[in-house]
Amino acid sequence: MAMEACGEAGNVKLLGASNSPVVLRVRIALALKGIHYEFVEENLLNKSQLLLQSNPVHKKIPVLIHNGKPVCESMIIVQYIEEAWDSKAPNLMPKDPYDRAIARFWAAFVDDKGVLTGQGEQQQKAVEDSVANFLVLEEALRTSLCFSGKPYFGGDEIGFVDIALGGMLAFVKALQMATNSVLIDVEKMPLLSAWMDRLCKADGVKEVMPDPANQLEFIFAFRARFTSPPAAN
Amino acid sequence: MAMEACGEAGNVKLLGASNSPVVLRVRIALALKGIHYEFVEENLLNKSQLLLQSNPVHKKIPVLIHNGKPVCESMIIVQYIEEAWDSKAPNLMPKDPYDRAIARFWAAFVDDKGVLTGQGEQQQKAVEDSVANFLVLEEALRTSLCFSGKPYFGGDEIGFVDIALGGMLAFVKALQMATNSVLIDVEKMPLLSAWMDRLCKADGVKEVMPDPANQLEFIFAFRARFTSPPAAN
Repeated sequence: MAMEACGEAGNVKLLGASNSPVVLRVRIALALKGIHYEFVEENLLNKSQLLLQSNPVHKKIPVLIHNGKPVCESMIIVQYIEEAWDSKAPNLMPKDPYDRAIARFWAAFVDDKGVLTGQGEQQQKAVEDSVANFLVLEEALRTSLCFSGKPYFGGDEIGFVDIALGGMLAFVKALQMATNSVLIDVEKMPLLSAWMDRLCKADGVKEVMPDPANQLEFIFAFRARFTSPPAAN
Repeated sequence: MAMEACGEAGNVKLLGASNSPVVLRVRIALALKGIHYEFVEENLLNKSQLLLQSNPVHKKIPVLIHNGKPVCESMIIVQYIEEAWDSKAPNLMPKDPYDRAIARFWAAFVDDKGVLTGQGEQQQKAVEDSVANFLVLEEALRTSLCFSGKPYFGGDEIGFVDIALGGMLAFVKALQMATNSVLIDVEKMPLLSAWMDRLCKADGVKEVMPDPANQLEFIFAFRARFTSPPAAN
């Protein structure tokens, strides 16, 4: 592939913010593949010219710039990383077309049902919706023909869905602290809960997973300014 | 690939509705690839057991059932069709990883900004938003390094973005008739307008493109029952 010729030596830059769940997805994917990159911290209240030029349509992080060419939107970037460095282990997507469709389905489910940070009644509703969605994921872990009984949604290795959901985890933990509620309940969601613990301790994830306490600060800082999530891209 | 062994002789069934834009995407993809399939018309007010069992999470059309295995969500199905029948021309996705990322970006843009069918003020707002989004697509056709100057978003052949947007076209035309407004204006959007005419006349598209007058009936029928779009899956 054309990109492969550039290999790891190619210049890789990630425009992001340390506490953004969607940026975390890309950092997990890059860490798993062992790709070196420059992380550029963006100030979301005063976005850089590079960000505005690289993502003129949405003006959002994350943006991955590979040899000068920008790729936008977290899960599109993760697929790009898999395809541009396809000979580098691990595979972030299954090889079988049907398994790939299933991975895309659950990643889209996680993406559409992102954990929100409303306030008051809105926040309560967001917590209830999140719990309902986590129960759907628990059921999938219990019954899916593709990944039931496996350590990860990706099977024996961390994959596309693990990354989609894994990016949200520090945020989920922070939200649990902020709202004094339990979103991923070990009693009601034993499989999802065990998955969360396993993922957070895995190589390539533990190095980049932010401290929930910092995420909490991030939530509170943004709450003061906005009622909608800061970077739900 | 595992699926490839089953080849075209494999049993392919599409659960859909004749007037659904998202189902139309799948029909265009199947027609372009020349894949024979059984179309199962769903009554959205009384969904079949097969639909409910095949898509228990969202309970929505379209669902493609290939050798008994269901794939859900229109653009995931289109990617599945490309990958399961990858040796069959035409390619619905570019081969280069960067070009693939760009195709996914614009398909997601079309998906997120779907044309809505609100009423009154809500409808006026939907029309304005749609026009703004079509102007973004016009600008992309004018300036994109990937497809500017080419007949289609997919380059010389119809591809992923053409299918994402193409599915909406009969609906757009119907909405123009219903609201007596022009969404894709030949003066302001000469490239998008020419693309629309070209796509609607193309082999594989013209055979499955529904009559806008029927779409109009569909819009009016649903308006009587709902204020939100019927199958924005």
